[in-house]
Amino acid sequence: MHTPKDSRTVMTDLVLPSETNPLNNLFGGELLARMDRAASIAARRHSRRIVVTASVNHVAFNRSVPVGSVVTVEAAVSRAFKTSMEIFIDVWIEDRFSGEKTKANEAIYTFVAVDDTGKPTEVPALIPETDLEVERFEAALRRKQLSLVLAGKLKPKDATELKAIFIDK
Amino acid sequence: MHTPKDSRTVMTDLVLPSETNPLNNLFGGELLARMDRAASIAARRHSRRIVVTASVNHVAFNRSVPVGSVVTVEAAVSRAFKTSMEIFIDVWIEDRFSGEKTKANEAIYTFVAVDDTGKPTEVPALIPETDLEVERFEAALRRKQLSLVLAGKLKPKDATELKAIFIDK
Amino acid sequence: MHTPKDSRTVMTDLVLPSETNPLNNLFGGELLARMDRAASIAARRHSRRIVVTASVNHVAFNRSVPVGSVVTVEAAVSRAFKTSMEIFIDVWIEDRFSGEKTKANEAIYTFVAVDDTGKPTEVPALIPETDLEVERFEAALRRKQLSLVLAGKLKPKDATELKAIFIDK
Amino acid sequence: MHTPKDSRTVMTDLVLPSETNPLNNLFGGELLARMDRAASIAARRHSRRIVVTASVNHVAFNRSVPVGSVVTVEAAVSRAFKTSMEIFIDVWIEDRFSGEKTKANEAIYTFVAVDDTGKPTEVPALIPETDLEVERFEAALRRKQLSLVLAGKLKPKDATELKAIFIDK
Amino acid sequence: MHTPKDSRTVMTDLVLPSETNPLNNLFGGELLARMDRAASIAARRHSRRIVVTASVNHVAFNRSVPVGSVVTVEAAVSRAFKTSMEIFIDVWIEDRFSGEKTKANEAIYTFVAVDDTGKPTEVPALIPETDLEVERFEAALRRKQLSLVLAGKLKPKDATELKAIFIDK
Amino acid sequence: MHTPKDSRTVMTDLVLPSETNPLNNLFGGELLARMDRAASIAARRHSRRIVVTASVNHVAFNRSVPVGSVVTVEAAVSRAFKTSMEIFIDVWIEDRFSGEKTKANEAIYTFVAVDDTGKPTEVPALIPETDLEVERFEAALRRKQLSLVLAGKLKPKDATELKAIFIDK
Repeated sequence: MHTPKDSRTVMTDLVLPSETNPLNNLFGGELLARMDRAASIAARRHSRRIVVTASVNHVAFNRSVPVGSVVTVEAAVSRAFKTSMEIFIDVWIEDRFSGEKTKANEAIYTFVAVDDTGKPTEVPALIPETDLEVERFEAALRRKQLSLVLAGKLKPKDATELKAIFIDK
Repeated sequence: MHTPKDSRTVMTDLVLPSETNPLNNLFGGELLARMDRAASIAARRHSRRIVVTASVNHVAFNRSVPVGSVVTVEAAVSRAFKTSMEIFIDVWIEDRFSGEKTKANEAIYTFVAVDDTGKPTEVPALIPETDLEVERFEAALRRKQLSLVLAGKLKPKDATELKAIFIDK
Repeated sequence: MHTPKDSRTVMTDLVLPSETNPLNNLFGGELLARMDRAASIAARRHSRRIVVTASVNHVAFNRSVPVGSVVTVEAAVSRAFKTSMEIFIDVWIEDRFSGEKTKANEAIYTFVAVDDTGKPTEVPALIPETDLEVERFEAALRRKQLSLVLAGKLKPKDATELKAIFIDK
Repeated sequence: MHTPKDSRTVMTDLVLPSETNPLNNLFGGELLARMDRAASIAARRHSRRIVVTASVNHVAFNRSVPVGSVVTVEAAVSRAFKTSMEIFIDVWIEDRFSGEKTKANEAIYTFVAVDDTGKPTEVPALIPETDLEVERFEAALRRKQLSLVLAGKLKPKDATELKAIFIDK
Repeated sequence: MHTPKDSRTVMTDLVLPSETNPLNNLFGGELLARMDRAASIAARRHSRRIVVTASVNHVAFNRSVPVGSVVTVEAAVSRAFKTSMEIFIDVWIEDRFSGEKTKANEAIYTFVAVDDTGKPTEVPALIPETDLEVERFEAALRRKQLSLVLAGKLKPKDATELKAIFIDK
Repeated sequence: MHTPKDSRTVMTDLVLPSETNPLNNLFGGELLARMDRAASIAARRHSRRIVVTASVNHVAFNRSVPVGSVVTVEAAVSRAFKTSMEIFIDVWIEDRFSGEKTKANEAIYTFVAVDDTGKPTEVPALIPETDLEVERFEAALRRKQLSLVLAGKLKPKDATELKAIFIDK
């Protein structure tokens, strides 16, 4: 059995001066790279395969992350498809004085498992356990439909779950 | 007058061994970081301000980029809103022997212009010129609506242009 | 109340090609640097202060860590003294195929909490909870005595707990 | 036909805090390294071969480049010899507020094309087009003679074009 | 004949902004990594083999090393055992204005020589020459005993030289 | 009194995989950056000032430097002018098995001493001691003339020492 807990990956690290913009905050691009590394480890833990980034969902940067911050990137598989896995990533920063943790970002990456020649290969199904895991598991299907629509591989009218959001009832 | 050409930013560089995964291809996260740097320069050229990453749109990694490749990241502002700018990024790789350039990725980042205290500040409007620029300019509005819907700041039924895609006519 | 759990810091990351020696294993020095970053975060979480490395205890490198490995560095405060904290670090590596975790290293760092001018400042006491935490807490005192002996600040005959190890009973 | 335009390589990037000296200006050595990467790409585009740096001409650093600057390195082949290529590099920096571009440096690197065993291999001739390209093409011969003289491989009196500069007429 | 002088390795370099903590001093972990590189070169010069870090002795960080400092790491083999070598490392920093050199740290690393498969292989004996070299050579034996005791491979009561320190006479 | 020995700077380090080209040899640009750092330390030791790179003389890369090599960069001031210093740099690589050192490169950098505002400031004269130091000291004047000629600041016919080389006697 494979649960989100089995793939959960925690990457806590400092924000170094070489990773910051002129306002002394972490570059968005550096955070994207850290999240990619954490997510790739989660995908590998789920699949026991080489994994490659297939796509990154919409990511919003709501809070700036100042130099010297402690940043925790937490990644876990949220749904497994045939050869791909959706990874949900939560990013937290800690206040140096109070120690209070604040949610800084969420992001969703998709990875594909491949063999040594780079060919996609099957991955085990994921069994969500907690309420939050079930919620993310279900939303993953709508996100996959949106991806396919945006890539022109699915007609909007066939994206049943997604379409429902836009129709007045 | 501010056109996409005025902000166009070209960043050509090698893929170094330290940036590659076990298949010897560029890490997705490294490419996200390069695109963020190129896009931030385009946003700065348009606004003449400090700029910070506000969000990254859906990015699909369609082609792997092997170590030793020459990668060209080309970024230009595709639409300016009140204080934010959408940046459209095209990524090309070149075959070492034939020199042929292939499209490897597209990505869309949004940046906000800020003053020295980090407060959002207005940016000039963008005037698209070529057909492709006009097309990207118009699509930018639909993408902004999608962002607002996903962030819960706009009701799906009010996202007029976006909603139209999902309704059978 | 401050327990080891409150300061526990988990840093999971990949071993990148740029961090490896001619046998394609992680450089000892790179692992020392990662452990220093993780330990400094644990010390900061305990003290809510700026912290600086004061010393590193004997570290043995028992297992090589090949490129592409997933390495988990886990650090927690094992004992707090007046202005210094001992941090106990466990390092694990995972087999890519079986997912089995193996203990690769243990290390012990000492950090001092300082104010903005670099002057040592008091830290809260630590309350160990589990058996392992109690064991490490008690051994920390002997290690501190050994440090003082090695630095010539304590006479060997006054290092009561330490001396006991070397006397036949 | 191979023209300078075919090999032109544009590398625009930020100056990061980790690349600066105590005056917060870009280290000369970092700029030399960036120019080497851009020039190597230009040489590869001309030759479609592996290329290695053979020499760097005299480089003068006339203007300091402050942290946070946008730097554009533009490289193109200026002349091809049997197995080597001279690359002419122009470096520009932009003022953050006015957007004005200023010439910061010029440099000239020579690369050799090699096969997989590192043996020099022939490269196509270069056809200069613009007036500036023709001027750089012709000067390249004098520079090659100077190189040979400095390396003791050509007697000064046989360096016809070069010698002419030093003789009063 | 192999003397400490034959393996002496000098690594002088700047402290860059990307290597410093919030007090603008060199991270302890970065210094540990530099010392590891210098020590590995000394071990290789003595053994002419691939070498891997086996252990790091107690290291005390007595002085902070500010950004912009010139740091000199000096490493030399202090004693060779069957397949392992103890490396003694002295670290100096220079005052920018007076040029005065101050001792910042001492450290002791142990490396093992290995063949291409990673199997330990014999190394030549070391012949100390100066008084300081002889002193470090002799102390190396006591340190090895302490290592074995700490690793549980030698009974404290059999560590003759070490035990002597703790017994009142 | 200031001699070349007083400023001599030795920087021995490994060639890491992240610094190599597709033939697994050190990038020319990386070596240029290392030489710049070593030379800047030598210039600082001579002048006790902040120093900035003013120019790099012709550098020829005669030998490739494979990954895993031990590279020694040795820099010393070869002549001091009013506010500038010429630094002569010798680069050595060592064979892993025989330990034999081979000369890989020579390079000549010029640095200017500046005050905290970046304004050039005077430096002490240099007194060469050995034959090699005297030879380099004298050649430095001819090189300075060549620089001035190339920069258009000195008429070729006034560059007395330099001109002499090109005239048949």
